[in-house]
Amino acid sequence: MVAPSENPPSGSDIGRIDRVLAATAGLDTPVAVVDEAVVEANLDRMAEFASSSGFVLRPHAKTHKSPELAARQISRGATGLTVATVGEAEVFAAAGVSDLFIAYPLWLTENKARRLRAIMDHAEVLLAVDSIAGAARIARHVPGARVVVEVDSGQHRTGVHPQRAGDIGHGAAAAGLEVLGIFTFPGHSYFPGRPVAVAVQEANALAMAAQSLRAVDIDPVIRSGGSTPSVAHADPTVLTEIRPGVYPFNDAQQVELGVCSMSDVALTVVTTVVHLDGNKAVLDAGSKSLGADHPAWTTGVGRLPDYGDARVSALSEHHATVDFTDSADRPELGDRVRLAPNHVCTAVNLADELVIVNRHGTLSRWPVTARGANA
Amino acid sequence: MVAPSENPPSGSDIGRIDRVLAATAGLDTPVAVVDEAVVEANLDRMAEFASSSGFVLRPHAKTHKSPELAARQISRGATGLTVATVGEAEVFAAAGVSDLFIAYPLWLTENKARRLRAIMDHAEVLLAVDSIAGAARIARHVPGARVVVEVDSGQHRTGVHPQRAGDIGHGAAAAGLEVLGIFTFPGHSYFPGRPVAVAVQEANALAMAAQSLRAVDIDPVIRSGGSTPSVAHADPTVLTEIRPGVYPFNDAQQVELGVCSMSDVALTVVTTVVHLDGNKAVLDAGSKSLGADHPAWTTGVGRLPDYGDARVSALSEHHATVDFTDSADRPELGDRVRLAPNHVCTAVNLADELVIVNRHGTLSRWPVTARGANA
Repeated sequence: MVAPSENPPSGSDIGRIDRVLAATAGLDTPVAVVDEAVVEANLDRMAEFASSSGFVLRPHAKTHKSPELAARQISRGATGLTVATVGEAEVFAAAGVSDLFIAYPLWLTENKARRLRAIMDHAEVLLAVDSIAGAARIARHVPGARVVVEVDSGQHRTGVHPQRAGDIGHGAAAAGLEVLGIFTFPGHSYFPGRPVAVAVQEANALAMAAQSLRAVDIDPVIRSGGSTPSVAHADPTVLTEIRPGVYPFNDAQQVELGVCSMSDVALTVVTTVVHLDGNKAVLDAGSKSLGADHPAWTTGVGRLPDYGDARVSALSEHHATVDFTDSADRPELGDRVRLAPNHVCTAVNLADELVIVNRHGTLSRWPVTARGANA
Repeated sequence: MVAPSENPPSGSDIGRIDRVLAATAGLDTPVAVVDEAVVEANLDRMAEFASSSGFVLRPHAKTHKSPELAARQISRGATGLTVATVGEAEVFAAAGVSDLFIAYPLWLTENKARRLRAIMDHAEVLLAVDSIAGAARIARHVPGARVVVEVDSGQHRTGVHPQRAGDIGHGAAAAGLEVLGIFTFPGHSYFPGRPVAVAVQEANALAMAAQSLRAVDIDPVIRSGGSTPSVAHADPTVLTEIRPGVYPFNDAQQVELGVCSMSDVALTVVTTVVHLDGNKAVLDAGSKSLGADHPAWTTGVGRLPDYGDARVSALSEHHATVDFTDSADRPELGDRVRLAPNHVCTAVNLADELVIVNRHGTLSRWPVTARGANA
């Protein structure tokens, strides 16, 4: 884990922090604010990594839900976007994204199928299957649809055992779908010290699944994986494509996993100290602006980038209780403080728009167009 | 804790459950659905309790964020509403609610003060103070504002020790505010077996704070408390007012605290089984539609009212993993299932609207007008 106090901000970082708080001084708190310079550096770094490693980059748009950010990913070479729901696909297709992968084993109803066909009038859509029954429904409603088989690489959520990829692929092809390969989400990479081992599991699972597909005469052209914590260790001899989501913004979880440093966190919620009592402060942000994600391995419910040793010890809907016992500095009542959410994907989904601070301290706004597009 | 399997649904409950799923069969999942008959019974019960106990009822609107539901609370005798933010107050004032308590120690900026004064053109607003500095800012921006002093009754979030209520009240009065009493939120009632003891702490804290205010010649006319878990035990010899929030809808937490039975849960998220593997099912709802609240004392991350012994063992953004090992029944792939969120306040805040099913199975919609009104 990276303790930010071990990486004190450099002179330019301090300037950046001041700039974000100064630029947003007139806004009511809590407010979700993005430092554009940090986002752009994060986008550049991942695009360069994908390109130099030979991976197709298909970022997961569930993190940002923003056509503006999607455009910046695509302009840097992303092939298209990954989304989780038909609703998200609708938003990004309407925004002109022409290549969408819905990385979710949809159970197609008449209505979702109708919405899907409308999207397909404007964009190439790749779908996911992890059961013969699910594939049959897709084939009935969207004949000839392009699909990949979801494989479980160890997270044990959706997806089949890699050895079953051939069965599912064969069934999907027999139903009339175009089977293009396999994908997995190695979500068990979200644990300290685990990303390298999980990337090995991901590669092994995809290699085994590829073999299983080839055994039924299906060429797994697409072999897709990659989560933000594990992507740096993705195996280019197996994977053709990576689908990281969190990397444009980063968050407290990524810092505590050692995936990035606090200065790489682009999105923070600017909040106000409304209560101060000894070593305890209460900020006016809570689970309704930050999300309540709190895995057992995190050291708190969010982090304060400018007070590295302080910990958010409790979160309720509109209160973040912060313990400053271990912090040399502490804010005063009424001070404004930046708070990095544990999980930026759920935090973004709570905002109607993101406030963007550019290099010159000028504000703009990006609507979170796909906020709430869960169905 | 109430294990729903010990309270099998009665014949009419089964009819009700069928009616909710049947009425919403044409809607894409996940979707937040409210059973109107259950809401009305919950509203009636609390109104009757407040009336028969002699309490003013000022429900917390953070739970429902809905002017439609607020109107039903007020028509049943609620004096006004409690809200957490200026933004929520704006929504309910615009909807015609004329009596609002912002139960939060606001740190007033110029802009929040301007918004507050605009609300005060249409509604009586009561504010909260828990510091002399905060009170001074209110007095500067909103001279003569009506306030109550927040007291800590054991949750250790905001609020002062009851013995300090007089100091804060005296300071607020000296700054020119009209000090009307005291309030507390006994949020530490959210733990199995604790509600009765916490209600005693609440009464003791408010009694002590009342004495402290009287010692500085302030009459604590308002003595306000009450959370949904503890409200049944609120002391009518001390409290004048109760502010429960969750009771119109209830949720899995309230069931596991023994505050209500599963048949009193009015809001469920209707979701589809997208993956089935032995005793494990995955539903297409997750933290982006349910919220991620998961206190250590809960048995899972939400409950399935119609499969009482099943447990939601894990939640990601669009997946709820359910363990059916202990359940006699289990759904099939593609079945639609009702899921009760752990914490309904954060679940409602994720929806743009709630789908209402009335007694006859007819659908209507209530906009969640104050969704996202965090600032």
